[in-house]
Amino acid sequence: MKIKIGIAGYGNIGAGAEKAIAQSADMELAAVFTKRDPSSLKINTPNVPVYNFDEIANSADKIDVMLLCGGSAKDLPEQGPYLSSLFNTVDSFDTHAKIPEYLEAMDKSAVSGGKSAVISVGWDPGLFSMMRLIGEAILPVGNTYTFWGRGVSQGHSEAIRRLDGIKKDANGKKIAVQYTVPSEIAMNAVRNGENPELSVRGKHLRECYVAAEDGADLQELESGIKNMPDYFAPYDTIVHFISENEFAANHSKMPHGGFVFRSGTTGADDNNSNKQIMEFALKLESNPEFTASVMLAYARATVRLSREGRSGAFTVFDVPLSYLSPKDSATLIKELL
Amino acid sequence: MKIKIGIAGYGNIGAGAEKAIAQSADMELAAVFTKRDPSSLKINTPNVPVYNFDEIANSADKIDVMLLCGGSAKDLPEQGPYLSSLFNTVDSFDTHAKIPEYLEAMDKSAVSGGKSAVISVGWDPGLFSMMRLIGEAILPVGNTYTFWGRGVSQGHSEAIRRLDGIKKDANGKKIAVQYTVPSEIAMNAVRNGENPELSVRGKHLRECYVAAEDGADLQELESGIKNMPDYFAPYDTIVHFISENEFAANHSKMPHGGFVFRSGTTGADDNNSNKQIMEFALKLESNPEFTASVMLAYARATVRLSREGRSGAFTVFDVPLSYLSPKDSATLIKELL
Repeated sequence: MKIKIGIAGYGNIGAGAEKAIAQSADMELAAVFTKRDPSSLKINTPNVPVYNFDEIANSADKIDVMLLCGGSAKDLPEQGPYLSSLFNTVDSFDTHAKIPEYLEAMDKSAVSGGKSAVISVGWDPGLFSMMRLIGEAILPVGNTYTFWGRGVSQGHSEAIRRLDGIKKDANGKKIAVQYTVPSEIAMNAVRNGENPELSVRGKHLRECYVAAEDGADLQELESGIKNMPDYFAPYDTIVHFISENEFAANHSKMPHGGFVFRSGTTGADDNNSNKQIMEFALKLESNPEFTASVMLAYARATVRLSREGRSGAFTVFDVPLSYLSPKDSATLIKELL
Repeated sequence: MKIKIGIAGYGNIGAGAEKAIAQSADMELAAVFTKRDPSSLKINTPNVPVYNFDEIANSADKIDVMLLCGGSAKDLPEQGPYLSSLFNTVDSFDTHAKIPEYLEAMDKSAVSGGKSAVISVGWDPGLFSMMRLIGEAILPVGNTYTFWGRGVSQGHSEAIRRLDGIKKDANGKKIAVQYTVPSEIAMNAVRNGENPELSVRGKHLRECYVAAEDGADLQELESGIKNMPDYFAPYDTIVHFISENEFAANHSKMPHGGFVFRSGTTGADDNNSNKQIMEFALKLESNPEFTASVMLAYARATVRLSREGRSGAFTVFDVPLSYLSPKDSATLIKELL
């Protein structure tokens, strides 16, 4: 019997989840829920219904796990606690400062409905969080470093688009993207066990690709980006002005990735100590498809938690890794241990 | 109240564990057990007793977790099932083919004594196993690659030492070491998402440092190494003849490390698919100290499993990551998620 997955919210992550379900032999897509007009939404999987979000409660007994694919800013704080009383859920809530509050709301709601929810699943928060925990638990004397990129930051791209003088595409959207780029110099210092103290400016630089309007003052636009408080002023920023065609050809994907390092020392506190370096790296051609793939592995875990009667909200720190796999314990031990 | 750790077997891993305990604020070394004459064993921690292995049962109520630091070939198959009925245990059993059998024996024994045992903890098996599981659970369409090194292989070093013509050190031990070296070409092909099919010879090469006896036939010795079945014949092998002094200066440590890659594809099965690469790398100056550090983190988990009344044997696949940390759940979420 396949695990029946529902997708709540059909943006980039929801569409990525649909593709990831097609790769998972033990899962099937049961339904998609959207705030748009369902008849306007064309999904790829044949014979799967698309419903309006308002009807979602009607599907409570038809879905094993609901993937909450809405945004962290507005959708999830409202949808999450509602849906986790009706469904087992997995989400990628990533507003870091608000996670404790969100966890509490999700826990309360999931307990009330007898459901299991795994929150803040993805790669950061998610896999990177797991690596940070493993790193400091194993090497208590040491430093943890997280670098992000090279990849598209939606927040920084939107910040650029608030400026004047940027060309719009056929949909009226301003043509600009920002890549967060980790400093190779900084990363190599970490890899070599130098335990550097890194400034914000020393860790990442910001690279922007912008199509300017005809006649725009490029110097002013560049200066507007580079001096934007919080977003760009604290960083070294590079601005490239390119054509709309070049943008469409080279900057329409959503790559991302990053690195988590734990640089520790073991042994006696003298000249006999030993450097121990752990590195975890992701190089992703599609950030939303990868995030959705992580969520699906945790959907499997959520079903298992639910079958064990463990209602409430959990994070990646709470879930045994075997719960992520479709394989049974004996097979995991034989093939992977 | 600190976690009281016992060390059963004071070889490289046992000595590494002693140093790692000194780095862990929530743990203390309670006793060391050895098959040697206890009065001959000098440990570093003051006021900690050293007992003969035969007396180990007398300490059953004084130790929260016993680290089994003996070898997988002879010590653990015998000691493990005995000790896991008396103590909560953690070991680094790494004879891969025999893990299912060992797990069963440990489980039976731990259940009978109402104790918890976590087996096969370290970096491979251990952290690398975890990465292989995470990789294939998240990216079901893809390939997993494990590379080892650059690091000392004890088995291959011992194989060289069986040959004639090798100089002995002051303790009568033949002077030879073998490093397993992963192929940079192969790793870069994996990093680039090429999903190469790799032969045994294409993945690793073997680099040997040997001090020959005066008058030894170097050509014959080199040929004896390179043509040794199983150990060297299937690989490209480099043999360096060096002096005893150079050996002592540059080859007395036990570095190791390695890489686990998951190279997967998400998205539609056409030109819109996306490459997703996960890489986990370890660069260790001391293999035994790192292995001991991983075991200590799992000692913490073992105490927790035991307090929850979960007797029996477990692997790294069964243990939630939060159990590895001395921090409580709220702190982990705030600092690391």
